[in-house]
Amino acid sequence: MPTLRIALAQVNPTVGDLPGNARLVRDYTRTAVDAGGQLVVFPEMMLTGYPVEDLVFRESFVAAARSGVGQLAADLAADGFGDVPVLVGYLDADGPAAISAEADPGRGPRNALAVLHGGTVAATYFKHHLPNYGVFDEDRYFVPGTALTVVRVGGVDVALTICEDLWQAGGPFTAARRAGVGLVVTVNGSPYELDKDDARLPLVRRRAAEAGATVAYVNLVGGQDELVFDGDSMIVAADGTLLARAPQFVEHLLLHDLTLPAADAPAQDRAATPETADATATPETPDGPDQMTVDRVVVGDRPVDPTGGPVSGGVAEPLPTEAEIWSALVLGLRDYVRKNGFSSVVLGLSGGIDSAVVAAIAVDALGPDRVVGVSLPSQFSSEHSRADAAELAKRTGLDYRIEPIQPMVDPFLANISLSGLAVENLQARVRGVILMALSNQEGHLVLTTGNKSELAVGYSTLYGDSVGGFNPIKDVWKSLVWTLARWRNDDAVRRGDEPPIPENSIAKPPSAELRPGQLDTDSLPDYALLDGVLTGYIDGDAGRDDLVAAGHDPALVDRVLRMVDLAEYKRRQSAPGTKISIKAFGRDRRLPITNRWREPGDG
Amino acid sequence: MPTLRIALAQVNPTVGDLPGNARLVRDYTRTAVDAGGQLVVFPEMMLTGYPVEDLVFRESFVAAARSGVGQLAADLAADGFGDVPVLVGYLDADGPAAISAEADPGRGPRNALAVLHGGTVAATYFKHHLPNYGVFDEDRYFVPGTALTVVRVGGVDVALTICEDLWQAGGPFTAARRAGVGLVVTVNGSPYELDKDDARLPLVRRRAAEAGATVAYVNLVGGQDELVFDGDSMIVAADGTLLARAPQFVEHLLLHDLTLPAADAPAQDRAATPETADATATPETPDGPDQMTVDRVVVGDRPVDPTGGPVSGGVAEPLPTEAEIWSALVLGLRDYVRKNGFSSVVLGLSGGIDSAVVAAIAVDALGPDRVVGVSLPSQFSSEHSRADAAELAKRTGLDYRIEPIQPMVDPFLANISLSGLAVENLQARVRGVILMALSNQEGHLVLTTGNKSELAVGYSTLYGDSVGGFNPIKDVWKSLVWTLARWRNDDAVRRGDEPPIPENSIAKPPSAELRPGQLDTDSLPDYALLDGVLTGYIDGDAGRDDLVAAGHDPALVDRVLRMVDLAEYKRRQSAPGTKISIKAFGRDRRLPITNRWREPGDG
Repeated sequence: MPTLRIALAQVNPTVGDLPGNARLVRDYTRTAVDAGGQLVVFPEMMLTGYPVEDLVFRESFVAAARSGVGQLAADLAADGFGDVPVLVGYLDADGPAAISAEADPGRGPRNALAVLHGGTVAATYFKHHLPNYGVFDEDRYFVPGTALTVVRVGGVDVALTICEDLWQAGGPFTAARRAGVGLVVTVNGSPYELDKDDARLPLVRRRAAEAGATVAYVNLVGGQDELVFDGDSMIVAADGTLLARAPQFVEHLLLHDLTLPAADAPAQDRAATPETADATATPETPDGPDQMTVDRVVVGDRPVDPTGGPVSGGVAEPLPTEAEIWSALVLGLRDYVRKNGFSSVVLGLSGGIDSAVVAAIAVDALGPDRVVGVSLPSQFSSEHSRADAAELAKRTGLDYRIEPIQPMVDPFLANISLSGLAVENLQARVRGVILMALSNQEGHLVLTTGNKSELAVGYSTLYGDSVGGFNPIKDVWKSLVWTLARWRNDDAVRRGDEPPIPENSIAKPPSAELRPGQLDTDSLPDYALLDGVLTGYIDGDAGRDDLVAAGHDPALVDRVLRMVDLAEYKRRQSAPGTKISIKAFGRDRRLPITNRWREPGDG
Repeated sequence: MPTLRIALAQVNPTVGDLPGNARLVRDYTRTAVDAGGQLVVFPEMMLTGYPVEDLVFRESFVAAARSGVGQLAADLAADGFGDVPVLVGYLDADGPAAISAEADPGRGPRNALAVLHGGTVAATYFKHHLPNYGVFDEDRYFVPGTALTVVRVGGVDVALTICEDLWQAGGPFTAARRAGVGLVVTVNGSPYELDKDDARLPLVRRRAAEAGATVAYVNLVGGQDELVFDGDSMIVAADGTLLARAPQFVEHLLLHDLTLPAADAPAQDRAATPETADATATPETPDGPDQMTVDRVVVGDRPVDPTGGPVSGGVAEPLPTEAEIWSALVLGLRDYVRKNGFSSVVLGLSGGIDSAVVAAIAVDALGPDRVVGVSLPSQFSSEHSRADAAELAKRTGLDYRIEPIQPMVDPFLANISLSGLAVENLQARVRGVILMALSNQEGHLVLTTGNKSELAVGYSTLYGDSVGGFNPIKDVWKSLVWTLARWRNDDAVRRGDEPPIPENSIAKPPSAELRPGQLDTDSLPDYALLDGVLTGYIDGDAGRDDLVAAGHDPALVDRVLRMVDLAEYKRRQSAPGTKISIKAFGRDRRLPITNRWREPGDG
C-alpha cells in the first residue's frame, strides 16, 4: 500500500485579505514541502477567510477570489511546488449571487475547494451540505455542489469534502465509500464552542466508518468578530484510530505519513459504480435519496515514498475546559485587536471581578504595555474597590490611570433634575464618555466588560458600562467568570507566576456601586440560581414550564424571564464578543425587540 | 357561476401577542360576517405576528400557537361564525425545531395557514417556498410544505398559498392550475420597500395567469422593529383585471363579490390529475420538477348567494412616492413606540434638517404632546441653529426644552487632556448623556436622527448623536431627507396647514457644529455625489470598477468606499430604524467588521 505524507495546515487567515492569505499558503506550503509533504491541505475558504458574509454578493470580490486562486496556483508553481497538490478553499461562482428570489438556484456562488497542481486549478469541489442554523446562513449565500471530487494523489484516491459535509450523514461521505477512496479530506471553518472538541472526534470516527476510509480533518484557527476557531485538526483511520491531532488555538502544521489503499486495489463495490455514487443504500440517509456524481482527476498516479524517516504528527491532548475557554477568549480578543489594526486597548477597572478578568485576558492577549486600565471612582466607590483596582494593575503591570468622575457628574445634576435610576445611569455614562474620550485621543480600542448574565437580564447601563468595541466576556456566565478567575490564578501559581487577579475581587459580593451600599443581589437573584435559569432559557430555548419542571423556583423563573425579554433592545446595540457557548447573543440568537410573548406563568 | 363575497382583513397584529391577535381576528370576522362576508382571510402568521424569528425554537411558543389556533376556531364558532371559513396564519410543528444539523428535515416547524370552520381547524396549508435572502431567514426556521391545500367554499375550489409562494414561479400556483381551482388566496407578510407596490400588481397578474384563476392577495399592515408592512391587499382576475385594491398603511377590510367557476365545472386538465398536481409541464419551473400533492377539503359544497346588493371593494390608488415613504416612516415609528409600551419620545433638535424631519415624523406619528424636543446648544452652535430649532418647536407644537451643554462639557476638558476629534465627539456624547438622562427620568423613548448617508460613511459619534432606541430615518439617504422635508411642507400647504419644517433648516448647508464654522462638506463630498456612490455600493453591491464605469469620479469612489468599509463597527451598534429601501443596514446587509477587503483602486 502506498504511503502518503499529508500536511494539514491549521492556519489563521484574515477575512478579505486575499494577498495576505495567499502569502500564508505559500509560506506553509514551503515549510510542508521542505519537510517532504506530498499533499498540503488548508482550511475552508482559506483564500478569502471565513465567513465572508455578504461579501459573497459583491461581484468584484468573487472575481478577485476566482482570479486569486488561479494566481496562487501559478505562484506555487513558480515557487517550485507545482508537483505537490495543494488544497485551498475559496469563493467561486458561475452566475450572479442568489440574493433575488427569482435567481436560478442552479447557478450562483459556491463554497469551493481547489486542487492547485502544475501551476493551475486542477480540480474543484463545491460544498454539498450548507449549514443554515446557529451563526451560519449558508443557504443565503451558496448553491450546493452535487458532485463528489476524487483526486488521485501518489496512487491514492482522495475525496474532498467541506465542513458541514461532515456534520450531516449521507451525501459526500457515502459517495466516497461508493467511489472506493483511500482517504477523505475535510476542510473546516468550525467555530469553537464549549465541548465541541469532544463532539468532533466521535463525529470524524463515524464518518470514517461511513466512508470506509481514513479521514483527514483540518480546521481554521483564529478570531473573526464573534467567532474563534480552535483548530483541533486531526487524522482518524477507517477503523476509528486517532492517528494524529494538532494542538488547539495555535497555528500548526500537522505532518503525518499515512499508509493507504492504492487506487487500483480492489474495493468491495467500486466496480459497480465507477463514475456515479448513490447514497441511498447506506444506513444513514436523513436527506432522503442524495445522489452525487463523482468527478475524478489524476494528479499523481504512482506511489512515491516519502523522503527521510517516517513522520508522525503526534496526538496533542485537548485542553482542559477552563484552559480551553481562556485560550478562546485570549485569541478572540487578540485577533479582533490585531486584524482591525488597533495596537492597544483601554478599559475601566472597578475593582470588581468582571473588569479584573477582562484585564487579565487583555494582558495575556496583548501584553501589559498595550493595556490601559482606568479607575473611575465616584463618591459611592468603596475604598476596597480602589485598592483592588490598583492591586490588579500592580500585579499585571498594565498602564494604570485614575480619573475620579464626580467633577463631571455634578454639573449634570446641577443642570438637570434627576433622581434614582437616572442618577445611577448618569455615573455609568460619564465613565463611558471618559473611556471613549481616551480612545479618541490615544487610539485605544475600548473593551466593555459585561458578562453574559448581565447582558441576559439587562443589568447594565446602555451607553454607560456597555460602551466599547469588543466584549471579551460577552458569552461568559457570571458563575463562569469566577471559575475562570480562580483557574487563571491557580494556573499562575502552578507556573510559579504571580496570580493576576486580586483575591478580594474574586471573594467580595458583586456591586455596581452606583448608590451607597448597593449590591447586585438588591436587583438580581444569587448568580448561581440566576445562571441556572438563564442557561436553560437562553442556551436551551426552554420555556417557563420546562424550567419549573427542572426544579427552578417558579417565582424566580417568572422574574428572570421577564428581565431577559425586556432587555432585547440593549443587546441589539451591544458590542461583539467571543462566542464560547452553544448559543451566544448576536447572530446566534435572533429575537425581535418588539415582542409581547411572555412565557405563561401561574398567575 | 357561484358568487363568493370574500373579505380580506388587512390588519396590524403584534408579534407574540397571541390573545390580542386572536381578538383582532374575532373583531374583524364579526365586521366581515355582518357585511355578508363568506370567506374571511387574514395575513401571514396572523395569530403569532410576523416575523417571530427565534421564537420558533421555543417549544412553549409553538405549543401556544397550536393550541391558540384551535381555541380561536372554537371561539369563532361560539361567536356565531362557525359556518364561515376564516383563514388564519400561525406557527405549527410536528417535531422539534430544526436548529440542529442532524434534525430530521422532514419534521419541524412550519409557516402554516389554518382554515377555521365549524369550531375546528378544518384544513391546514404549509408554506412551500421559503425566502432566505434580504431580511428573511426562513430556511433557518421552517420546513417547507409539499402539498397544496384546496378548500371548497360556497361551491368554489380555493387554493391556499403563503407569501413567497407568490414570488417564485412553479410550485403552488402551477399545482393550483392542475387542480382546476377557481380562486387562489395568498396571505402575506410582505414588508414595504420603495416601489414594491409597483412590483406586486404585475407579479399577482403573472401568477393569476399561471394558475388560470382569480388571485386574492392580503398583506399585513404595521411596524415590526425594522420592518413596516404596507398592506396593499388586492384581488386580480385570471385575465389580469385588477378588481379591488386596499389603501396602504392603514387597517382595512376589503370586501368584494367574486363570480367564480363552480368546482364541478369542467377544467381543461383537471380530470387528468384529480389528486396530484405536477408542475413540470408549465413554462416556468426554475425549481426543477416541483411535485406537489393536493389535499382537498370541503367546507361548503353549494353556492350561496351573498346577501344584499353587490359589494365591490373599490380600487385604491397607490400613494405617490414621497407620501408612501412618509407614511411608512410614520407608521414604523408609531408602532415601535406603541407596541413597545412607550407613551412619548425625546430627541435633540439641532436646527438642522435631520432632526427637523424626525421631529415632524414623530409629531405626525404621536401628536405634539408626546414629542419632547431638546435644544442642546454649545459654544459652537450658531444663532440660526437655535432659532431654527425654536421655530420648528413653535410650528409643530412639540414640548420644547433648552439645555446648554457647555457647563457639562467644560469639566471633562478641565480633567482630561483632549484635542481635535476627541473634543468634537465629547460634545456629541454629553448631548447623548442628557437625552438618556431625560429618558430615564421621564420615560421617553430616545429617537436618534442619523440618516442613511451618515450611517454609511460613519459620520456620527458613537454613543453621541447615535444614542437612541429607534431611528426613523436610518434607511433614508440625505438627499431623500431634503426631498421629504420639502414634500411634507408642500403637502401642509396643500391642506391649508402650516408647514412644520423651517425653510432655513432645509436651505442651509448642513453642519455638525462641533467646531467653529464646521460644515459637512469639510469631511464629506457633496451629498448629491455621495448618495450616488453610496446607492450603488450599498443598495446595488456594485464594486469600485462598476461605480467608476457608471460615471462616478474614481478618487471620490475610493474615498467613499473606504469610509463605508471602516464604519461597520459603528453600524453594528446602531439603533433599529424603518427599512424603506431594497437594502437597509441591519439584517438586510450582513458584513463582517473584521474585513480587510478593500475594493481595488488604480494606485
